[in-house]
Amino acid sequence: MVRARTGFVTRCWLGVPDENPFGIDNLPYGMAALPNGTTRLVVRIGAWAFDVGDRGPHASLDALFAAGPEAWASSRQSIVEWLTDERHRGLVEPHLHPLESVRMTLPFTVADYVDFYASEAHAANVGRTFRPNGEPLTPNWKHLPIGYHGRSGTVVVSRAEVRRPAGQWRDADGAVRFGPTQRLDLEAEVGFVVGVGSSLGTPVAVSEFRQHVFGACLVNDWSARDIQAWENVPLGPFLGKSFATSVSAWVTPLAALTEAWTAPPRRTPAPLPYLDDSAQPAGLDIELEVRLNGQLISRPPFASHYWTPAQMLAHLTVNGASVRTGDLFASGTVSGALPDQYGSLLELTRNGAEPLQLADGNRRAFLHDGDEVRLSASARGPHGRIGLGAVHGRVAPALDHGR
Amino acid sequence: MVRARTGFVTRCWLGVPDENPFGIDNLPYGMAALPNGTTRLVVRIGAWAFDVGDRGPHASLDALFAAGPEAWASSRQSIVEWLTDERHRGLVEPHLHPLESVRMTLPFTVADYVDFYASEAHAANVGRTFRPNGEPLTPNWKHLPIGYHGRSGTVVVSRAEVRRPAGQWRDADGAVRFGPTQRLDLEAEVGFVVGVGSSLGTPVAVSEFRQHVFGACLVNDWSARDIQAWENVPLGPFLGKSFATSVSAWVTPLAALTEAWTAPPRRTPAPLPYLDDSAQPAGLDIELEVRLNGQLISRPPFASHYWTPAQMLAHLTVNGASVRTGDLFASGTVSGALPDQYGSLLELTRNGAEPLQLADGNRRAFLHDGDEVRLSASARGPHGRIGLGAVHGRVAPALDHGR
Repeated sequence: MVRARTGFVTRCWLGVPDENPFGIDNLPYGMAALPNGTTRLVVRIGAWAFDVGDRGPHASLDALFAAGPEAWASSRQSIVEWLTDERHRGLVEPHLHPLESVRMTLPFTVADYVDFYASEAHAANVGRTFRPNGEPLTPNWKHLPIGYHGRSGTVVVSRAEVRRPAGQWRDADGAVRFGPTQRLDLEAEVGFVVGVGSSLGTPVAVSEFRQHVFGACLVNDWSARDIQAWENVPLGPFLGKSFATSVSAWVTPLAALTEAWTAPPRRTPAPLPYLDDSAQPAGLDIELEVRLNGQLISRPPFASHYWTPAQMLAHLTVNGASVRTGDLFASGTVSGALPDQYGSLLELTRNGAEPLQLADGNRRAFLHDGDEVRLSASARGPHGRIGLGAVHGRVAPALDHGR
Repeated sequence: MVRARTGFVTRCWLGVPDENPFGIDNLPYGMAALPNGTTRLVVRIGAWAFDVGDRGPHASLDALFAAGPEAWASSRQSIVEWLTDERHRGLVEPHLHPLESVRMTLPFTVADYVDFYASEAHAANVGRTFRPNGEPLTPNWKHLPIGYHGRSGTVVVSRAEVRRPAGQWRDADGAVRFGPTQRLDLEAEVGFVVGVGSSLGTPVAVSEFRQHVFGACLVNDWSARDIQAWENVPLGPFLGKSFATSVSAWVTPLAALTEAWTAPPRRTPAPLPYLDDSAQPAGLDIELEVRLNGQLISRPPFASHYWTPAQMLAHLTVNGASVRTGDLFASGTVSGALPDQYGSLLELTRNGAEPLQLADGNRRAFLHDGDEVRLSASARGPHGRIGLGAVHGRVAPALDHGR
């Protein structure tokens, strides 16, 4: 154990302080294309990617996921030992790569992708926007976590360019138009990744969450609001969402989030027994930040989310649907009660009616070509904050359809 | 070329007449678990599974899909030669297995699963049932093929047992209930399987359909109507569909359906240019049959489908979404205009109000435990009918949730 220059304790012989958001208490996993051309299972420590692909039995994150909770704990324990016991330094150092020298790839093979709609503030904001004369929440909302299946084949990793999609929508005058979306939005979400699958026909109980879920990532569920509004009835979102979903390159294991569990908001009516998550704190106090072209525009608090991840998984499987290694389920847009906590431009600009005034002099109702969105997040750890890997995305211009 | 006992021509030295629905003009592919324990790529000829897994370069249907149209044509040509040229008999015969000696497995790895809603009669029947005072079709319906993503991880092969799902619904008195679905339904659909994927950001044109799509299968999109009705607003079907989707064990290549192309119904308004499929007949004249406990209850005509498969693929990708090898997109319930052509019990029984009277004395509003559903289909071929592999499914009782 050595003292870093900051005066804080650091257990890692690399000198990364324990308080670093990517210090020894975090150790998220990812897949990195190394300078030598190979793609390897890596762990992030500070500003390094530690290639663990030939130091353990698991060559990929997919393989580690499938190996189950005991293997997850044993992998993490080994990595902590390698990075804190100075005697391993000579063996480990050749496998440390500065982050800027590697290219992070999609960290795991996405099996099924489900997106929930589990923030009360978000659902109410959307309800007020699209049903101004009705109740903000639909009658089912407080009885079950609403969700739908998204497109797993278009999940991309952070820093992948996102092309503005084309599609149909209906103008205010009632005419049907075709062209690049005029209302491209972001959605700040937290995603959960299934490690161990379940059997078809057998639900996963709330209490079994940690036997199945490996960890968390951040998700930007890009949305074309005009396309979505036109196609949405009666079967829900389709092309308005399916063009791209960006996930962080790093998956933070639940083992790094032990200090982040918190009581969820009070639920009325009480959830049905299969959704009862009161045995232990089932919410996660993860603080998100949304940046547009570098400027912080929102701080969505995941602690305010109405439905918890364990409830999402229990609901997803209560009909007997099985989950598989690599299933990704996301929280839906995280929005807090306050206007500077909204997780989408739809809410931040009141559906475009009140554009954001940015410090660089620009205004934004929805995203322009070239805009850069960055989602980041952190949670309380044993020493400092635990950083969740960021999700960057830049909007590329639409293809010229010419039709 | 020899004469079969029927007096019809048969080119196959096995004696399977050309007019057989699984004769030499059809040759659908599947994956079979053989008596020796291996799982092999097989082709169906009559009542035999022909193990082609070591006679060509493709060990699985996934691999054949990915190999592309030239490989598809070459594989088919080789198989026709082996089965029609008597000189190959000695080599081929050891690889022929009676169908009853093999167990068919899921024929391909399902990537993303999309389900459309593209039958006008079906959409109008559903609209009249759930919105009796509104227009039968939503305003978008004739502008685009409505679709949504389903759960690919719960696609099962024909003959897999389907367990009655549990879930929430709201009773007529407004109370929220939990338990096994009381309104389990079938949906008769035609599915299309993507062989060659596309690039993210680049749409697949209507004219490119045959470069990407390998063939067709039959699909039973099991639905729990009570669960679906309660969860459906605002994001569409989720647990009401995700517990199981059954597909046929045999995938019929498009090359076997050359005689089945037909003009689709007249579309008004004219589809947008990206959905223009008028260059050649883009509909498929496939006649479906739905049997419940052995009794024929409906004959849905796919020729009446409003949106064609090429339009579905073009729409699915117009926003830049990519497709992958193994993507499955289904037509949605196939229903004709006549009551004996409806492809779901919801329609056949008017949402349960007019139960079917079966010949065995039983009545059915929705499916009972133990009920057996069989979907089959055929299309015109060069000599006789081309059979699409059937989808069987038997309803198993719900788990005892006890909660």
